[in-house]
Amino acid sequence: MLQNIPLEQAQSILNAHCKIIGKETIRLNDALGRVLAEEIVAKEDIPPFARSPFDGYAFRASDTQNASRANPVTLTIIEEVPAGYAPTKQVTPGTAVKILTGAPIPEGADTVVKYEDTEFTETEVRLFSPSKSGENIVSAGEDVAQGTVLVEQGTVITAPVLGLLAALGAAEVAVYRRPRIAILSTGDELLEVSEPLLPGKIRNSNSYTLQGYLQSCGVEPVVIGIAKDKKEEVAAKIEEGLAQADMIISTGGASVGDYDVVKDALKLLGAEILYWQIDIKPGSATLAAHKDGKLIIGLSGNPASAMVILQLMVLPVIKKMAGRAVYANEKIQVILKDDFPKASPRRRFLRGMLVFENGLTYMQITGGQGNAVLSSMIGCNLLAEIPGGSGPVKAGERLTAYLVDC
Amino acid sequence: MLQNIPLEQAQSILNAHCKIIGKETIRLNDALGRVLAEEIVAKEDIPPFARSPFDGYAFRASDTQNASRANPVTLTIIEEVPAGYAPTKQVTPGTAVKILTGAPIPEGADTVVKYEDTEFTETEVRLFSPSKSGENIVSAGEDVAQGTVLVEQGTVITAPVLGLLAALGAAEVAVYRRPRIAILSTGDELLEVSEPLLPGKIRNSNSYTLQGYLQSCGVEPVVIGIAKDKKEEVAAKIEEGLAQADMIISTGGASVGDYDVVKDALKLLGAEILYWQIDIKPGSATLAAHKDGKLIIGLSGNPASAMVILQLMVLPVIKKMAGRAVYANEKIQVILKDDFPKASPRRRFLRGMLVFENGLTYMQITGGQGNAVLSSMIGCNLLAEIPGGSGPVKAGERLTAYLVDC
Repeated sequence: MLQNIPLEQAQSILNAHCKIIGKETIRLNDALGRVLAEEIVAKEDIPPFARSPFDGYAFRASDTQNASRANPVTLTIIEEVPAGYAPTKQVTPGTAVKILTGAPIPEGADTVVKYEDTEFTETEVRLFSPSKSGENIVSAGEDVAQGTVLVEQGTVITAPVLGLLAALGAAEVAVYRRPRIAILSTGDELLEVSEPLLPGKIRNSNSYTLQGYLQSCGVEPVVIGIAKDKKEEVAAKIEEGLAQADMIISTGGASVGDYDVVKDALKLLGAEILYWQIDIKPGSATLAAHKDGKLIIGLSGNPASAMVILQLMVLPVIKKMAGRAVYANEKIQVILKDDFPKASPRRRFLRGMLVFENGLTYMQITGGQGNAVLSSMIGCNLLAEIPGGSGPVKAGERLTAYLVDC
Repeated sequence: MLQNIPLEQAQSILNAHCKIIGKETIRLNDALGRVLAEEIVAKEDIPPFARSPFDGYAFRASDTQNASRANPVTLTIIEEVPAGYAPTKQVTPGTAVKILTGAPIPEGADTVVKYEDTEFTETEVRLFSPSKSGENIVSAGEDVAQGTVLVEQGTVITAPVLGLLAALGAAEVAVYRRPRIAILSTGDELLEVSEPLLPGKIRNSNSYTLQGYLQSCGVEPVVIGIAKDKKEEVAAKIEEGLAQADMIISTGGASVGDYDVVKDALKLLGAEILYWQIDIKPGSATLAAHKDGKLIIGLSGNPASAMVILQLMVLPVIKKMAGRAVYANEKIQVILKDDFPKASPRRRFLRGMLVFENGLTYMQITGGQGNAVLSSMIGCNLLAEIPGGSGPVKAGERLTAYLVDC
């Protein structure tokens, strides 16, 4: 069994064991936040025809070549075309069509002039300057040309993607199924949220925090509940999770001691343990296993340790499983805003918040960095790396940081 | 009626007319993404008691003052305390308690030493170095001390907020109601998504894009549907919206021409028009009105014009209405990555994407900047300002930009 391995090795082991989830077809109305399981190629131009960007007159630019204030050109209005209607006549030399915003450019016309720049009656329009061919025409396909790859497979469907799919008439869309992730909390010390505190007990907050991160990430949490520190009980709950979900995340019982039962439960189930302990702080007490083709991740019971590893190691593999083309955390450079006075004998990740100032990226530490300190995850969208063997870090120093889900 | 006003004036008029929505109490399980309607003060310490960060032995530091490898100290083990259980005995000089990760520190003990750093039997533990009082103890309230303001009113409930509320035993939480925002599409040219294209017609994509942005922002869209370009029909749909929603957003019919009927419909209804046209590009064809204490925002029918104004002007006021303490778009400095070759006689906002490089913030233009170009809203999380009267802008120039919802 691999033990105390680097984070990067842990990540690539998980990536190697992660299977991309199946596909399903859903209504466009339900598609926000889902991951596209197909490449979207525009089967039509958007917009589908050349149109007028404002209310005015469409005509042939060549008619106005010598037009001026002193020597205006007068054209005969042969038709009026509002938005939503097709022109029925062709524009010939000496004629114009009254055209409204969004209406199709009539055949023969190659330019449009605004209302306000003309003089007009019901039957005639007078023009005072030369127009250029193609001027003031929104061309067909200006937004998206037919045949363009509009969105790649593995893209998360955001509002404008939804709008473009609608423009293309995609009333249904193929997406990846949302992975179901089981959440198992272990520990004799855990109480349900509604229970009053008792000596030695704490409330099961990890289950809620995990649900929140998983839902924010667009996957479906399945709460399996609390298992006491007995390997048989933990094993039974893991089996329940394997039956209901695509992956299991447990918290607690992944450390080193007498009552750390997740490892024993996994052995009892015949799961293969992939590794145990990661060489970082916080969150070294992490294990990964697999059984029946499904990953089982054991996180620390300490809230911050669990959530930092969730962000650094688990959410990326869940995003990969969910079919996302981009799943790794983006790495950026930041300048630390605060001193961090502790030494870091071991490689450490600091919780902080991205701050923009004068075109530079800074990180503000969001609070205490202890393993139990969940409050500093509030607003934390950056995890900055301090290499192992470092001394205290001063405000103004540059660090590498990962952008993480907040 | 105010006409062609600056964006900032338009924003402050909307803010002045926006009422914060009512409150409701919901289950913690449903609270992710909702806005807190109360300040959360910690009524208990988190964690609630001092505890051990790992498996080891708890004792009095003073017992080990002269301990060394050559001269170890041996203590008598009086009890074993696993996580979730309360110690029953007091630690006195010469005694120790075997303690597991997360278990409460027994009375009398003021330090903990790890398993691995000791030698032990069932009854005795041998220590080889002096411990300091308070060492290796996670103090009560290390995460959150009783009485601390944990989260301010108006905060969006994210995963760690959810976890901390759970740790405090908040099975229910007071949040603001989700504003209901009606979406009305106007125009004779509009088809439903499932309809085949006809000459002069386009599909109603704006309704989908708006739904997406509104849902991403945590509010509830109410789709009122398509109204033809007739003021009576538009007026009837606006009344429908006023009956069902807290605010109405319409697209189309807010320009200047013969068939721009939203203004006429509002007059017919006796709504007060607050302003008409904003002095920016894209999206100048915007109007705002109010009736029955509710805002009615008329956006352009051009997809990009509508969505840029949504992000710059409408989503901030919706966030305010939703009770968020922070609702304005954050302003940052960026370096342009691409040339923008057009002049900007009018104040212009460019669609782009934030790019991090070497500790600096850049903006990459996401595509065409025409009023109809929705595809450049994909990935657009920045709107950069080019002041009116500017010439072309070159890659490498610095611009001010607003961070917007993506």
